[in-house]
Order: sequence, then C-alpha cells, then structure tokens
Amino acid sequence: MNCKQILENLCIFIKEELLKSGKNNVILGLSGGVDSALVATLCKKALDKNVFALLLPTQYSSKEHLNDALMLCHDLNIDYKIISIETILNTFIEQSQNIDKIRIGNYAARIRMALLYDYSVLKNALVVGTSNKSELLLGYGTIYGDLACAFNPIGDLYKTQVYEMAKFLKMHENFIKKSPSADLWENQSDEKELGFTYEQIDLGLKAIENNDKQTMDKLDENLLKMLKTRIKNNAFKRSMPKIANLMDFK
Amino acid sequence: MNCKQILENLCIFIKEELLKSGKNNVILGLSGGVDSALVATLCKKALDKNVFALLLPTQYSSKEHLNDALMLCHDLNIDYKIISIETILNTFIEQSQNIDKIRIGNYAARIRMALLYDYSVLKNALVVGTSNKSELLLGYGTIYGDLACAFNPIGDLYKTQVYEMAKFLKMHENFIKKSPSADLWENQSDEKELGFTYEQIDLGLKAIENNDKQTMDKLDENLLKMLKTRIKNNAFKRSMPKIANLMDFK
Repeated sequence: MNCKQILENLCIFIKEELLKSGKNNVILGLSGGVDSALVATLCKKALDKNVFALLLPTQYSSKEHLNDALMLCHDLNIDYKIISIETILNTFIEQSQNIDKIRIGNYAARIRMALLYDYSVLKNALVVGTSNKSELLLGYGTIYGDLACAFNPIGDLYKTQVYEMAKFLKMHENFIKKSPSADLWENQSDEKELGFTYEQIDLGLKAIENNDKQTMDKLDENLLKMLKTRIKNNAFKRSMPKIANLMDFK
Repeated sequence: MNCKQILENLCIFIKEELLKSGKNNVILGLSGGVDSALVATLCKKALDKNVFALLLPTQYSSKEHLNDALMLCHDLNIDYKIISIETILNTFIEQSQNIDKIRIGNYAARIRMALLYDYSVLKNALVVGTSNKSELLLGYGTIYGDLACAFNPIGDLYKTQVYEMAKFLKMHENFIKKSPSADLWENQSDEKELGFTYEQIDLGLKAIENNDKQTMDKLDENLLKMLKTRIKNNAFKRSMPKIANLMDFK
C-alpha cells in the first residue's frame, strides 16, 4: 500500500468535496477509536483550521476512549465540544418497549447523527463519515446513524489499511493498540461479535471482492459464509431506498 | 393517469418489497397529511393486518392533523401508538446553540426516524417512506429524517398525483382539502414557503423532467429558476454519500 500517495489523494478529495459544497468547514464525531481519529487527522492535514469535532459519549462509553479523543483534539489543535448524550438517550429509552443493548446502540448512533447535522448548520460545515470499508461491506454500523454523512474519505480502506495509514501518520499508539470496538456497551469487541479478527475478515473480503478462488479455498468456511451472508443481508445499508417506478407499469 | 392500474401495481410493489425482506410487517409515521395517509391506505390494501403506525406529534403539531391521523387508523383498522416527542425534542434543543425553527424541524424529523426504526425491530417491520416526487426533487424534507425509509411506494408520484390517487381511493375529504404542510410549526404552509402552488410546481417539474421547452417557455421565470436551483442544491439528499475511491489513484 502506497500510504504517501493515498494520503496525498485523500487530502485532495477532502478539499474538493468541501469546495464543491460551498461550505467552509467539516464536522465529525470523535469516538476515541482509530477510524474517526484517522479521519480527523486527514481533515486537519487537508483543511487546517476548518475542522470541528463533537465528542458524544453515553453513560456506557469508556472514559479511556473519551480521553483519547480529547488528547487528539489537543494534539491536532482542533476545535471541539463535548456533549453527553445520556439524557437524550434516556428519554428515547423511556418511549421504547422491550429494548435491548443493540437497539440502545442504534439510538445512540442516531442521536449522534442528529447532533452532528444540527451543529453542521451552526458551523456551516459538511458532516464527514468515519466508516471503513470492512464495516461498510459487513453492515457493521447503524443506517441513518453512524453511516450517515455528506462524504467519507476512508470508506474504501479496509480496517487493516486504516491501521496501516494510522501507523504511517505516526498517530498515538493508543489508537493503534486498542481493540476495535463500537463502544456501545462496556467491553464491546468488534472481533468477538464478528467471530474473527479483522486480519482474517479483510483477507476474506478482499478475496470476495477480487473473486480470488485460490485464497477463498484456503479460508475458514464459516468465515466465508459469515462474510457473504453479511454482505448480502446488509446491502440495503449501502443503497438508496427503493422507490416504486411508475414508468415500470404505465 | 390510470389510477386503477397504479393502485394495483403499487400494491404488488409493497407486497414484493416486504416478501424480499423476510420481515412480516410494515411500519410508518402518520402525520395527518395526505402523503402518509395515502401510503397507509395503500399498505392496508396490499397487506391487510400487517401494518403498524406511529403518531409522533410535537408540541408544535396541529391537533387537527393528529385527529385526522387517528381517524384514519380507526377507519382502516390499523394498529397504532401515539408517542409525543416533546420531551425528546426539548432535550435535543437544550444541547443546541442559536437554534431556529428549521433546525427544530430537522430534530423532530430525525427523532421520528429513530423511533420508527426502533419500533421496526420490535414489530419485525420495514419502515415505509411517505415522501412524494415533488418533495424528493425539491429536497423538501430532512435527510436522515423523514426521507429515511426502507422503500417508498409514492416517491414517483408528484404531489398533484398524490391528490388524484387520494380522490380515486375516496379518502376522507380532510386529507384532500387541507393545505399541504410539513407541520413543523404553527400554520406552516409548503406553498407559502416554496412561493408557488403545487399545481404550478408540478407543471414545472414535469416540464424539466421531460425537457419540454414549449411548456417551460410559458412558465414563470422565477418558478423555473427556483425549481432548477432546488433540484441541483438538494441532489445530495437523493444519493449515497460520496466515498473516496482508492482505485482512482492506485
């Protein structure tokens, strides 16, 4: 992977998207994870002062992640605001029925989206997406929540490539060492939930993308099955809602 | 317009979308306006018992609209639940800065989306969209709010065609007579905000769609200019977020 070239091109991409939109700034949610930290770093390199971050922890978020997000804002000299979404989340939970932790996680993701879009108007900013290619393909995210954005600089980078870029950019080791987590509840782990490491997952996803039968034959059958099922079942998260087309039956 | 044929085909469309998804039910938000009332009527015809509605008024919603939505649920014999979103909306407003009524309206639309998606899990249901073609083209709706759905049966019907279908289906005159309104604040009027009637707007939109220069020449210049500007500026609401493509620069 040519990290230098990718960095250069992603900076151009970010600048061009902002220029086309007529807005002055970008805004993003910082979780303390490596994906949003990488996007913030890229935006800072591309746009310097025109980056604003919201840090939006719930009562379930880890303090460690929040501290890492804060450290990044200081290191990069990015303007930010912390808003605890605990109260908003609780008012939603009160209106729900038989709720479970996944649905609470979906609420948290959608609350963050609504706050980001509200602040994007205040700041005359575009909302930047922070989902990587592995998550997008697997549908490991909330539609109209963390998947919602105006544009996404890292949506074509697999999770393992996100780490490569983070190392290339000499980002703080906290982002590189911590285990991947959606941080929707205590000790949540992507890899435990998905049942495989991102190394394995990305190898499988690349093989599927390239229709590389030789690699596929060497992979765990359950891994391949999980990947193919998730790619298919979550395709709806990667496309616009289907509209009944009157021309089909005029 | 062949209303009978369109009705038949939209019912097939709704049944097929539900069948493909593997879910059992559809869920939709009912505002008391003609668009969501038409979608509820179509879903009831297509699916009979498998329709669930949420009625989600704010403190700013008109009581008259809520009553019309309730009447429809009783007339169609649709299961429903009323949730006032006033408290949730206020907790968002508390976290905002320099908020105005448009941003409050965006919050309301996104709160409704989050509740609909949460209840869709509870009910094993797909969220049905209720935006018409005029609104979609003009971007007269909130991205990741009322524009969010799994599928939309009326997204290819102009607003004036929505009325035609409503009359054909002998829907209650309250839906047909009331002036179009997003109902985000008291006495809001779509036509006042857009500056033209939907009759004028749809004539213009059709002329633009068909590149019908003869009709365009007869239309108010300001109308055409408004339509073209809105179509262009709101295109982002009708497409997926742009992802930086690594293949472009490998």
